[in-house]
Amino acid sequence: MSVKHIQLAHGGGGLEMNKLIRELFFNAFDNAILRNEEDAALLNLCGPTAFTTDSFTVSPLFFAGGDIGKLAIAGTVNDLAMMGAEPQYLSLGVIIEEGFALDDLKTIVHSMAEELKKSGAKIVCGDTKVVPKGCADGLFLNTSGVGRIIRPGISAKALKSGDAIIVSGDIGRHGAAILMAREGLELESRLESDCATLWGAVEQLLVHPFEIHAMRDATRGGLSAVLNEWAAASGVNIQLDEAAVPVSDEVRGLCELYGFEPLDLANEGTFVLALPKAQAEGALEVLKRFGHCEQAAIVGEVVGEVVEGLTGPAGKVVLNTPWGSSRYLDLPAGELLPRIC
Amino acid sequence: MSVKHIQLAHGGGGLEMNKLIRELFFNAFDNAILRNEEDAALLNLCGPTAFTTDSFTVSPLFFAGGDIGKLAIAGTVNDLAMMGAEPQYLSLGVIIEEGFALDDLKTIVHSMAEELKKSGAKIVCGDTKVVPKGCADGLFLNTSGVGRIIRPGISAKALKSGDAIIVSGDIGRHGAAILMAREGLELESRLESDCATLWGAVEQLLVHPFEIHAMRDATRGGLSAVLNEWAAASGVNIQLDEAAVPVSDEVRGLCELYGFEPLDLANEGTFVLALPKAQAEGALEVLKRFGHCEQAAIVGEVVGEVVEGLTGPAGKVVLNTPWGSSRYLDLPAGELLPRIC
Repeated sequence: MSVKHIQLAHGGGGLEMNKLIRELFFNAFDNAILRNEEDAALLNLCGPTAFTTDSFTVSPLFFAGGDIGKLAIAGTVNDLAMMGAEPQYLSLGVIIEEGFALDDLKTIVHSMAEELKKSGAKIVCGDTKVVPKGCADGLFLNTSGVGRIIRPGISAKALKSGDAIIVSGDIGRHGAAILMAREGLELESRLESDCATLWGAVEQLLVHPFEIHAMRDATRGGLSAVLNEWAAASGVNIQLDEAAVPVSDEVRGLCELYGFEPLDLANEGTFVLALPKAQAEGALEVLKRFGHCEQAAIVGEVVGEVVEGLTGPAGKVVLNTPWGSSRYLDLPAGELLPRIC
Repeated sequence: MSVKHIQLAHGGGGLEMNKLIRELFFNAFDNAILRNEEDAALLNLCGPTAFTTDSFTVSPLFFAGGDIGKLAIAGTVNDLAMMGAEPQYLSLGVIIEEGFALDDLKTIVHSMAEELKKSGAKIVCGDTKVVPKGCADGLFLNTSGVGRIIRPGISAKALKSGDAIIVSGDIGRHGAAILMAREGLELESRLESDCATLWGAVEQLLVHPFEIHAMRDATRGGLSAVLNEWAAASGVNIQLDEAAVPVSDEVRGLCELYGFEPLDLANEGTFVLALPKAQAEGALEVLKRFGHCEQAAIVGEVVGEVVEGLTGPAGKVVLNTPWGSSRYLDLPAGELLPRIC
């Protein structure tokens, strides 16, 4: 009789765990470093390197446009890409609840393997833990990653007055897709998470001589969080033109229904870019033509001083509404949607 | 009113999360790389580098001799040390259950900061997720680590006939301490987990010209798992002298009570070392005099052929009992103690 569900023994460090690791993980992620089976992977790195980590607790595990496996790969690969680093090596930590369906685990692992192909990153080390039923909700993943920095100096602290702010696509789709899945909603039109590996688009930007000041994927806290963190870190003010921010009709509709703000919703395959205004149109063209970012748009700019009527210390984000009014856009507070990623 | 428990908002990517990260984690782990607050930490690495990951789901979170925080630092630092690598940079992924006591989190974070001092490793990046009550059991941690390899070539595949096998201390204490904590046992004498950072002892070994073939900390699956994995990876047989393996009276007593085998019990600060027999006494002296490994002992050797009566293909571990008999020591199967680490 073959095993259909994860058992505690799959995390026990003995026979069953070895079998699971070899038959499932090694087959899916096969590479020479992983096959070494040492306590640590052996890498050869030289020069400036980016190092990042992310845990994934998304619920539900499967959603329109992706699953926790795709998310775990794209998320960490994107964190590296946002630093101008080539995503090279990932670790994978798996915490599985006893009784978890082996078929679901296989689907998720397969989805990770597929997403790795989008950047060429490799999983080179891992760890598997199984906790008794009721001690975790299905499956939690952690991926950490290292990558060679191709373009140094990209930083949340590097924004300058006169920079244009670009978003690479329409915002809020991941948050909206999770909300939809959780509420059991079905829309007539397709709404899918934007969950995607951004390295392809970033690589296109990096081969051009754009003077990129900052890049960040707009995950938890959405566009609002990125812009607020940038404004604070760089000591600048940012003006955002609400009408220019691409939002799909589906996301806008869901937001109206639930009282959410698209600017605060999480994205998992959409990034924000700051570079000198004179280069903005060129970067936009590269993103659209070569980076599969058809919805990319210039949505704001970095300003030395805040618009009239809203003057104050630097570090603010000012939202210019389509009706001609302006207000501060704050860092989101509270928890909109737990377990979004 | 100050917050005493973790709320979902602490994982929301907004104001509350920023406050928690700054006030708790940044203060405890303060260093220049972490303070950069980018999507990824910027490292400067050159040459052969070790990369490893471990998730920690130990229950209970606090036990005699340590807690999940100490374990999470020592565990990953030890994985690097076992590859002959200097533990340099760690990531920290935290999954917290809503309602978790902030004071407990502070104790655990403090314990991590203390343990980092034992090796000089730094936490340079992190991630915090909060899941609703009931979706996780208190707290799960993940640490990944990178470090410069000081002594290349140490490998589970490098054991050679004629190598001596050394253990750095008495075995089974972590497993026994967790068992005791879980069963609510109180022994008259002190039994504490061996949970500890091994870099100090390894560093002492590395400054001497010992020809170290393999090192591994004997965690899940205990000494049995390490020796079986080594024998298989190197295609050799290993003889283990049961009488020479140091086991404390407390561990031995608990094992008799519960029908466990000390050789299968997890350790979290005890490692196994293989090096040419002629260097074994020297290595033992270094471990005892400079490495704080007072219980270190030579416990076996790598042999070309299995002892008489038990001949077979290479890759076996033969246990010679104090009564003159011999038997194969197998890779543990099943799950002795879930959530040991």
